[in-house]
Amino acid sequence: MADQAPAMSFDAQRSAQIVADSFSGTPDERLREILTSLVRHVHAFVKDVGLTVEEWEQGIRFLTETGQKCTDTRQEFILLSDVLGVSMLVETLANPAGGGLTESTVEGPFHVVASPPRRLGDTIDERGSGEPCLVTGRVMDEDGRPVAGASVDVWQADADGFYDVQRPGEVPDRNLRGLFTADGDGRFWFRSIVPRYYPIPTDGPVGRLLKITGRHPYRAAHIHLQVRAPGIRTLTTHLFVAGSPYLDSDAVFGVKESLVHDFATVDDPARAAEHGLPNPFRWVDFPITVRRSGAPAGSDARQGPA
Amino acid sequence: MADQAPAMSFDAQRSAQIVADSFSGTPDERLREILTSLVRHVHAFVKDVGLTVEEWEQGIRFLTETGQKCTDTRQEFILLSDVLGVSMLVETLANPAGGGLTESTVEGPFHVVASPPRRLGDTIDERGSGEPCLVTGRVMDEDGRPVAGASVDVWQADADGFYDVQRPGEVPDRNLRGLFTADGDGRFWFRSIVPRYYPIPTDGPVGRLLKITGRHPYRAAHIHLQVRAPGIRTLTTHLFVAGSPYLDSDAVFGVKESLVHDFATVDDPARAAEHGLPNPFRWVDFPITVRRSGAPAGSDARQGPA
Repeated sequence: MADQAPAMSFDAQRSAQIVADSFSGTPDERLREILTSLVRHVHAFVKDVGLTVEEWEQGIRFLTETGQKCTDTRQEFILLSDVLGVSMLVETLANPAGGGLTESTVEGPFHVVASPPRRLGDTIDERGSGEPCLVTGRVMDEDGRPVAGASVDVWQADADGFYDVQRPGEVPDRNLRGLFTADGDGRFWFRSIVPRYYPIPTDGPVGRLLKITGRHPYRAAHIHLQVRAPGIRTLTTHLFVAGSPYLDSDAVFGVKESLVHDFATVDDPARAAEHGLPNPFRWVDFPITVRRSGAPAGSDARQGPA
Repeated sequence: MADQAPAMSFDAQRSAQIVADSFSGTPDERLREILTSLVRHVHAFVKDVGLTVEEWEQGIRFLTETGQKCTDTRQEFILLSDVLGVSMLVETLANPAGGGLTESTVEGPFHVVASPPRRLGDTIDERGSGEPCLVTGRVMDEDGRPVAGASVDVWQADADGFYDVQRPGEVPDRNLRGLFTADGDGRFWFRSIVPRYYPIPTDGPVGRLLKITGRHPYRAAHIHLQVRAPGIRTLTTHLFVAGSPYLDSDAVFGVKESLVHDFATVDDPARAAEHGLPNPFRWVDFPITVRRSGAPAGSDARQGPA
């Protein structure tokens, strides 16, 4: 009977062990491992800083408000994870760099609608506002073989720093989004405008956190890309605009040096005409190296869109 | 200018340092200390377990649902803190044991209405259901001097395991709550019923967590007490019923051995009549030792009711 066992006696020194022991009967071994580590780190944090009851209450309020700020189109907990660098850490652990592979970054909160299929060379800018640019690239595997027919999904902010879903009714639906299919040589190209840096949403608890810690909310200018093909590991990454403000202090720690590319100014009337661009225009080339995986593409659920 | 600094380059190995550095401009030194430690522990947790993107997504969903379960009368994040032993750890750090002081426990989520002032000897049981008991005690300081006129606020579950606020309209308002004033000798006494063990709310994310980890949701039977007086440090504690189930595995880790007391059966018709109790009756005595503090009582905000 439960009442025959000796009474537990909680004390601060053994607290993590006592709580970890309470999870020792967890049937799922992985869940038990995660909870045990979580308990040890949370208790160590509380002890390391000597968290007071008042500070704990502030923490409870902050977490509660963070959850209550979430809606179908706003995910404040992901934003919190982002500004604490946790999202980038998880993403980077899942996609170790090296071997010449293109580095990954977070998918971010704006990949919430499907990008419209477009033809190579098309523009994703349906408004004609902003500085025109040409984006070219080629999808290759680690062995330098082109990934023919790779799917290249792109989405980006406009010249004011907003995504289409942030300006419903004001800009065309799915503006600055496109789903391209690379050619037989793994090459892709499309027209767009140079994206602008922009702030993450600041009207919630995470915005308050940034404010009281003296951090700015800006993300360096970037284009999102997600590259998929049968037999390759899906790559989710950013193409950053060299020279953008906030490359040194991106609010969600998304910048990796290898992803910063020059959007050079090209003065070449013939080439501009060929692409249907005004002269001069900006041009960036983004060579992409992805990993072949033995697993069928369908099983790679971790990189799928939300 | 921001765009002249070199680009940040996030990597998993230096991640905690990179994020901690982002908080280096936090004006409030204590907040900076807390955030730096939090970042280090959260990043270490993610790396220690090798948290996958899918597990991170599950975590985000769990935290979001926990926030969204909260209302004016339901605090699921405190419940989460409770079942992870964090609430007890914070409380215990704030009130170190030793020197013969009565140990503290958490205030819990049911101290949400003011207890009605009652006279010494009164019953707090307005329904007459349950096993009658007499509770006696004496409030003393570390030097053994009685704390005359100490305020003793008590609240407890009924014989079915529910607090009054959980059964609105069904039981008298403020049933099983009472605010007593100790006599000139620091003594207090009142009548009640023996409380029952009870489950914490299980219809939210925290209940699901307990279920999938094979943990039960029960708290060992107890009476809450909060003792205040000018010039003493407010004490928030529990009086546990010896022999109650779950003393060895209280769902919120609230049990400390020194707080488990025998609710003995007394067969004494004269004493029963003196207290207006049926014979035999249960009796528990709870000697309480509190700490004198130099600070005025009003400044001790940390122990105040929510």
